[in-house]
Amino acid sequence: MYVVMVYDLEADRTQKALKIGRRYLTHVQNSVLEGEISEGDLSNLKNEIDDLLKPGESTIIYELSSDTLLNRTVYGDDPTEDQRFL
Amino acid sequence: MYVVMVYDLEADRTQKALKIGRRYLTHVQNSVLEGEISEGDLSNLKNEIDDLLKPGESTIIYELSSDTLLNRTVYGDDPTEDQRFL
Repeated sequence: MYVVMVYDLEADRTQKALKIGRRYLTHVQNSVLEGEISEGDLSNLKNEIDDLLKPGESTIIYELSSDTLLNRTVYGDDPTEDQRFL
Repeated sequence: MYVVMVYDLEADRTQKALKIGRRYLTHVQNSVLEGEISEGDLSNLKNEIDDLLKPGESTIIYELSSDTLLNRTVYGDDPTEDQRFL
C-alpha cells in the first residue's frame, strides 16, 4: 500500500523520527515522508514510531490503497525530484 | 473529495498558510490540515496557496476520493478530538 506519514516532535527530536521513517519511506517535505510499503514494514514502522513519541508529540500515518491517490500537487519548491505519481 | 494538505513555510510565515487552510479544512497537526472539500473550494485553496509561497517554501496537497482512505492512525497526542474517519 501507499502511505503518507507526517510527524510533529519537539524540535531537537525530529531527526529521530526522520531517521526511522527514512528506512521505509521517501522524505518529501520538512516533516513528511511517503511511499509504497509492505504490510510487514508498515507494522514495524508503526511500532518504532509509537515507541519514540513523548507526550505532546504526534505522528499521523495515512494508509491508501496504491491506486486511490487521485492527485498529488506540490506548490512551491518540490524537494523531491521524482514525480512518480498518478 | 477528501484532501490532506501539508505546508512548509518559513517560521514567521506559517500562520499565513494556516489561516488560508483553516477557511476550508480542519487543522489536525502542526503543519497539516485535512477534510472534505468541493472542487470549487479546492481550486480556490490551491490558488491562494500558490500565491502565498515564496522560494524555498512548499505545500503538498493530496487529493483522495472520499471513500478510499483506508486508514488514518494517530500516534501520540491527537490534536483533533473527532475521529470521523473510515
